[in-house]
Amino acid sequence: MTQLPLSADLIAEANARHADALDEDYDALGRKLARTGIDIEAVLGRVAGFSVAVPSWGAGRGGTRFAKFPIPGEPTNIHEKLEDCAVINQLSRVTPRVSPHFPWDKVSDFAALREEAATLGLGWDAVNSNTFQDQRGQAHTYANGSLSAQDAATRQQAVEHNIECIEIGRQLGSTDLTVWVGDGTNFPGQQDFARSLDRYLDAASQVYAALPDDWRMLLEHKMFEPAFYSTVISDWGSSILAAQELGPKAKCLVDLGHHAPNVNIEQIVARLHRFGKLGGFHFNDSKYGDDDLDSGSINPHQLFLVFNELVEAELNPRDGFNPSYMIDQSHNVTDPIESMLSSAEAITGCFAKALLVDRDALHAAQESNDTMMAFQALRRAYSIDVAPILAKARVAAGGAIDVLEAYRLSQYRARKAQERKAVGLGAGIV
Amino acid sequence: MTQLPLSADLIAEANARHADALDEDYDALGRKLARTGIDIEAVLGRVAGFSVAVPSWGAGRGGTRFAKFPIPGEPTNIHEKLEDCAVINQLSRVTPRVSPHFPWDKVSDFAALREEAATLGLGWDAVNSNTFQDQRGQAHTYANGSLSAQDAATRQQAVEHNIECIEIGRQLGSTDLTVWVGDGTNFPGQQDFARSLDRYLDAASQVYAALPDDWRMLLEHKMFEPAFYSTVISDWGSSILAAQELGPKAKCLVDLGHHAPNVNIEQIVARLHRFGKLGGFHFNDSKYGDDDLDSGSINPHQLFLVFNELVEAELNPRDGFNPSYMIDQSHNVTDPIESMLSSAEAITGCFAKALLVDRDALHAAQESNDTMMAFQALRRAYSIDVAPILAKARVAAGGAIDVLEAYRLSQYRARKAQERKAVGLGAGIV
Amino acid sequence: MTQLPLSADLIAEANARHADALDEDYDALGRKLARTGIDIEAVLGRVAGFSVAVPSWGAGRGGTRFAKFPIPGEPTNIHEKLEDCAVINQLSRVTPRVSPHFPWDKVSDFAALREEAATLGLGWDAVNSNTFQDQRGQAHTYANGSLSAQDAATRQQAVEHNIECIEIGRQLGSTDLTVWVGDGTNFPGQQDFARSLDRYLDAASQVYAALPDDWRMLLEHKMFEPAFYSTVISDWGSSILAAQELGPKAKCLVDLGHHAPNVNIEQIVARLHRFGKLGGFHFNDSKYGDDDLDSGSINPHQLFLVFNELVEAELNPRDGFNPSYMIDQSHNVTDPIESMLSSAEAITGCFAKALLVDRDALHAAQESNDTMMAFQALRRAYSIDVAPILAKARVAAGGAIDVLEAYRLSQYRARKAQERKAVGLGAGIV
Amino acid sequence: MTQLPLSADLIAEANARHADALDEDYDALGRKLARTGIDIEAVLGRVAGFSVAVPSWGAGRGGTRFAKFPIPGEPTNIHEKLEDCAVINQLSRVTPRVSPHFPWDKVSDFAALREEAATLGLGWDAVNSNTFQDQRGQAHTYANGSLSAQDAATRQQAVEHNIECIEIGRQLGSTDLTVWVGDGTNFPGQQDFARSLDRYLDAASQVYAALPDDWRMLLEHKMFEPAFYSTVISDWGSSILAAQELGPKAKCLVDLGHHAPNVNIEQIVARLHRFGKLGGFHFNDSKYGDDDLDSGSINPHQLFLVFNELVEAELNPRDGFNPSYMIDQSHNVTDPIESMLSSAEAITGCFAKALLVDRDALHAAQESNDTMMAFQALRRAYSIDVAPILAKARVAAGGAIDVLEAYRLSQYRARKAQERKAVGLGAGIV
Repeated sequence: MTQLPLSADLIAEANARHADALDEDYDALGRKLARTGIDIEAVLGRVAGFSVAVPSWGAGRGGTRFAKFPIPGEPTNIHEKLEDCAVINQLSRVTPRVSPHFPWDKVSDFAALREEAATLGLGWDAVNSNTFQDQRGQAHTYANGSLSAQDAATRQQAVEHNIECIEIGRQLGSTDLTVWVGDGTNFPGQQDFARSLDRYLDAASQVYAALPDDWRMLLEHKMFEPAFYSTVISDWGSSILAAQELGPKAKCLVDLGHHAPNVNIEQIVARLHRFGKLGGFHFNDSKYGDDDLDSGSINPHQLFLVFNELVEAELNPRDGFNPSYMIDQSHNVTDPIESMLSSAEAITGCFAKALLVDRDALHAAQESNDTMMAFQALRRAYSIDVAPILAKARVAAGGAIDVLEAYRLSQYRARKAQERKAVGLGAGIV
Repeated sequence: MTQLPLSADLIAEANARHADALDEDYDALGRKLARTGIDIEAVLGRVAGFSVAVPSWGAGRGGTRFAKFPIPGEPTNIHEKLEDCAVINQLSRVTPRVSPHFPWDKVSDFAALREEAATLGLGWDAVNSNTFQDQRGQAHTYANGSLSAQDAATRQQAVEHNIECIEIGRQLGSTDLTVWVGDGTNFPGQQDFARSLDRYLDAASQVYAALPDDWRMLLEHKMFEPAFYSTVISDWGSSILAAQELGPKAKCLVDLGHHAPNVNIEQIVARLHRFGKLGGFHFNDSKYGDDDLDSGSINPHQLFLVFNELVEAELNPRDGFNPSYMIDQSHNVTDPIESMLSSAEAITGCFAKALLVDRDALHAAQESNDTMMAFQALRRAYSIDVAPILAKARVAAGGAIDVLEAYRLSQYRARKAQERKAVGLGAGIV
Repeated sequence: MTQLPLSADLIAEANARHADALDEDYDALGRKLARTGIDIEAVLGRVAGFSVAVPSWGAGRGGTRFAKFPIPGEPTNIHEKLEDCAVINQLSRVTPRVSPHFPWDKVSDFAALREEAATLGLGWDAVNSNTFQDQRGQAHTYANGSLSAQDAATRQQAVEHNIECIEIGRQLGSTDLTVWVGDGTNFPGQQDFARSLDRYLDAASQVYAALPDDWRMLLEHKMFEPAFYSTVISDWGSSILAAQELGPKAKCLVDLGHHAPNVNIEQIVARLHRFGKLGGFHFNDSKYGDDDLDSGSINPHQLFLVFNELVEAELNPRDGFNPSYMIDQSHNVTDPIESMLSSAEAITGCFAKALLVDRDALHAAQESNDTMMAFQALRRAYSIDVAPILAKARVAAGGAIDVLEAYRLSQYRARKAQERKAVGLGAGIV
Repeated sequence: MTQLPLSADLIAEANARHADALDEDYDALGRKLARTGIDIEAVLGRVAGFSVAVPSWGAGRGGTRFAKFPIPGEPTNIHEKLEDCAVINQLSRVTPRVSPHFPWDKVSDFAALREEAATLGLGWDAVNSNTFQDQRGQAHTYANGSLSAQDAATRQQAVEHNIECIEIGRQLGSTDLTVWVGDGTNFPGQQDFARSLDRYLDAASQVYAALPDDWRMLLEHKMFEPAFYSTVISDWGSSILAAQELGPKAKCLVDLGHHAPNVNIEQIVARLHRFGKLGGFHFNDSKYGDDDLDSGSINPHQLFLVFNELVEAELNPRDGFNPSYMIDQSHNVTDPIESMLSSAEAITGCFAKALLVDRDALHAAQESNDTMMAFQALRRAYSIDVAPILAKARVAAGGAIDVLEAYRLSQYRARKAQERKAVGLGAGIV
């Protein structure tokens, strides 16, 4: 039986104050959509079926190489992080899975951890390995790379860590392993581009070989940081070629902040799907680099265009359509729970808007080279305020109409600030 | 028998004034290189064997959508362009091939054109098709795309034009077809990303099917311009996946100005080679977009790093190594002959510097994670002033020690300004 | 008496079909806004008072250096362009002024032209000079610059052209001169950065001296194109320093596509206002460079954030607030009238959303470092579908509820295709 | 009396092995330069007078938010850092000053610290304040900004810290205060752009008021990081306007990695000089963002172009020319001493090349719009291998011909690894 962190009564009371307004807005939107032949209840049904995972590490305050500014009540272990994730899901009802990171989330009894999560209403998403940091007592340093390291023992250590992550994931009930490596260089000449990739592919294939039949290996590319001259899997081209070499269970994961400036990310999504390798997403937003800002906070239209591709892909599955969705953000200046509540709403809203696109009109305009009407088909959907649909879906599932308001009313963080031990200052590394 | 445009005596006289200085510098460099075990004569031999093609259209002054400022004596047809290209090769001795563009360079008798070029000491490089403009009297407009157009008759027209280019190329003695399309969109929704690519691949495969056995089809990708929201072959990822679908004769062509900001182009070169699809280069330089500036004028170090990959690739051919090299620039503010002379020297110089890299030292440093020494292996080679080697190679082949000085002494352009008809103002399209 | 191009009956009939739906949506939105204390009628009033100019040249199809694809019925002179602009204003009722460009729009009798515009319901916005192209018969070429040219006679010619533009503007009733120069370089070393600016400032000060008392000189900066290494007024820093040197009537004009990648444009707007130099805008959108795409088509959220600054600036005028608004786009793939109708709606919509921001809540959140609620104050306004307010404002002024539908129903372009002479192919300059 | 860390004999012995080769190369270069009228001895004299400061914090290994990989023998306090800086200067003889950072380098007796440095042959450069991190026991957090913080007590604390830095600097013999703040936002709406700047200017003016007469306040701008939506002093435009408001002792500091992609940094240098506000440099290199890579390792040509502006500025001082030069890099993958040795050589080499530009030829070409020859004037100088001049200057001052070789022969780091306490793993903040 689930035991959720917040009082259901508190949520119900908060909702009660908004119920009439929500009904009014929902009905008005329903009439508006009906005029164009859209049944709002059908959209509500699809929205109710949508979900996105949250990362365990996202529950803590993030930082930069310059500083980390902790907040009172931050979680400091996987148990506290799970509790915070349960709050997010209790209010939003769209984040029922947590994506763990190892060794950060390591415990002695993973069966118990799975139980603990289930009690909080949570399941487990993709498992994330970590070979971009050294851990105390680790035999070989990742200072010069991990899966692509020149040193064979280092590569072996990285392979074994990934295989251990798969094993943990099996215990938790995951079916995806996300592999992101920071491997790369800071100087021209530091490594040979081709040999580095050869080593990466050789090591990654050993991890791949350890995947259970129903698992996928999600390769996450990134242009730069921590490496600042070259990165071994730096772009979607490298990612998909690596995934092709590894085999059918290898797919590509798109993080919205890991691309070169100006790149058309929604087209990359379409390309990956077209070639059968779209594995999933790390949602966030960015203005400059891998800023890990809140999803949709900077460029919500881009997020909508990504979901437009996803809805289109679902309708044209080609080699299948089963992407994994996760939030991956660094909450440097906000309460992480609030940021993930807000982000989950932004993501779900873009999904809802993409559902509202009149695809017949869109395709007809595309087929007749009617550029303006093709664009308008997207723009009309984007302009719609879908908040009432999202709120209705939450209420129906036990969540809050106004998630941030309900969270603040709960005084959850203040209570945790009493209970939890303080986090130290991030020293900053310049 | 060849008949070159400039007086051999003039070149010889100009060279005579620099001969002693060149000998002194060459000998000093030879002694310096000998100290690190490098035989300057061996480098000279490799440099003497290097060449890069020039584009026929590069002989004319370029422009922007805002304006074109012609110069007196500009060529206005393929015959005059060939003559200018012959000047470039006569002085530089590294540009013995011309790359034609159709229909711009269309003539009634291609056998005669081949003869004409041979008399000028010139052969023919990759043939370029043009489906980014409409020609007078053309049946179907490319306003909405060419190989990827929604309209089947338009695609067919584009296919047939490419096949005609192959046929012309056979008559000229070419073995490469370079395909660049401007196809893309200016609005989200304008076209479906996946269906556009499907159409492109279908049409391109018809062109591919018409390739003679010893020909290659070089796919040129570009991020943006003329399309400003999406481009069908926008990046090396799309290019290599398309080349994979088309078959072994399809390769990828890298234009140095066609990438997203900050992208590591030398790594892309290495990736294309690693996966057997490096077809060739369009050399130029850029600061902002597809600026088509003179090769090496903005970032000569990047050009060196590209050649470092090429020398490395030649030593590790994997699936072969036979890239096609061409200059592709827009000479908006200089005499195009001067820009191509200067650019050919910059390109050859980077090739020479890449040859001077102590690869044993580089590889040893890479293998021992000695980052600083790996970098220094490249930096030492890059710092060397290789001008004496290039000049020696030119002199030995009949070219000029100081190519720009000899060209100016010849007063070639002033003579052509008397002979050739004037070019009209480019009106500018804003 | 005004004589507008489209039939008022046609518009009225089209509107009649949407009237009930509009009332329903408007009322629902009114109730929603009332719940947060906003009077929709007050917003409607502000929207009704909003306007943005259109550029005469925007009425023609644009192009790139590669090609221009004309459409039947394009205007080929200022009279036809005025007629098209009148259509835009008749339907949208927010574009009552036209911004002319000289010598493109030169006529023999400007008083008559002013009359002609007035009859069409149009006035005149900022006058634009052109020193980035050579005109047939021009004494001195701008190939090496205009206001910053090394050659004194060329600078003098550019100064005189600008002064002539002021004189024309006086006849038309304008009070702003917009100065954009393409001056810059394609090579390091081509010009001395400091001396170029000295020359620019000296020449610009002569233009400034010719300004009537109630005129402003709007300096438009641009990062690159047509110059690809450096541009004399390349960024807002150069622009504001130049404006400071010139004097109080010199202000800075922001074109949304003229900035470096990733730059925070809304902050630039705030900075220019903070230092008393915000002169106006050229609205468009871009993904890569100066793409001149339709306003809000790529990043509508950025456009909203710009208007958020403008509303904030109006409330905090410091040294005054009187920005000039104009659309400046290149309509390469659409009917220019449709693009400007759609763009005017996008711009007005962002203005309306910015009005809906709860500024008390925003400021309170800012003052208490409540980052999430400050962001939500903006996001709530941005999410609102303001289309009903815009439509109501249009209807009240005689415009169309659905501007694109009404335009298509009018078959205006098809009629003009019968009447007007065809435009030639843009040859393209590569 | 100075006591330098390395054995002078070891350096002399290492030099002896290269002395003949250096003489040969230097003489050959001298003859080559003499042919164009350049006296190599005069250049040597200028190079001998050149210097660049090193930052105390640069002596430690850097890192990213993901990880820091320490090396054995890293310094952990200002005394050890000074010793390492003394090694750099002993070998390179161009880095005689250290730039301290507070509170990182705080000691109880600054007079003693100044003595300690002097004994190591070192003086003190600009003092750096730190208000981007919280220190243990600090009264007010900088989580929401420092000089621009909403909270008055926080601003006051930041002002006082800067004034304390000035006081420490006076004791050390510095005359510059460098102010970089990380203040900014991660969300639209988080702060009001204008009011943030107002607060910054108000607080900065209090710091300015505390400057001794012969001091300067160097404002360092940065586009992003640690703030990822906006930064209070984000670009040179904001920086120079702030410096104008503060007064004549306020100048702008250019860090080569703090700009938007593609920006022309050498033009910014020229602009700052043109308007009398060029204060100094933080030298490093970057490919993507504030990568803090080794100077000249990615784009050495850009570094040369910057020095070309500096030499030009020195010849045209307008309002004076006295920039402060410092290396500011993050040595994540190398021995920091090696990186700073290599970087100091790269910087000095670019200065030397800029001296070799034939300025008469350059100016003549600029004045006659001879673009190609203007460019060639720069290119000829850039192509020269100036290593012999640099080495001669070092030898004459007691430094090493091959700085990296001599450093490695000294086994300095290995000895320090025995003596110094180990540095902990950087945990990484994701």
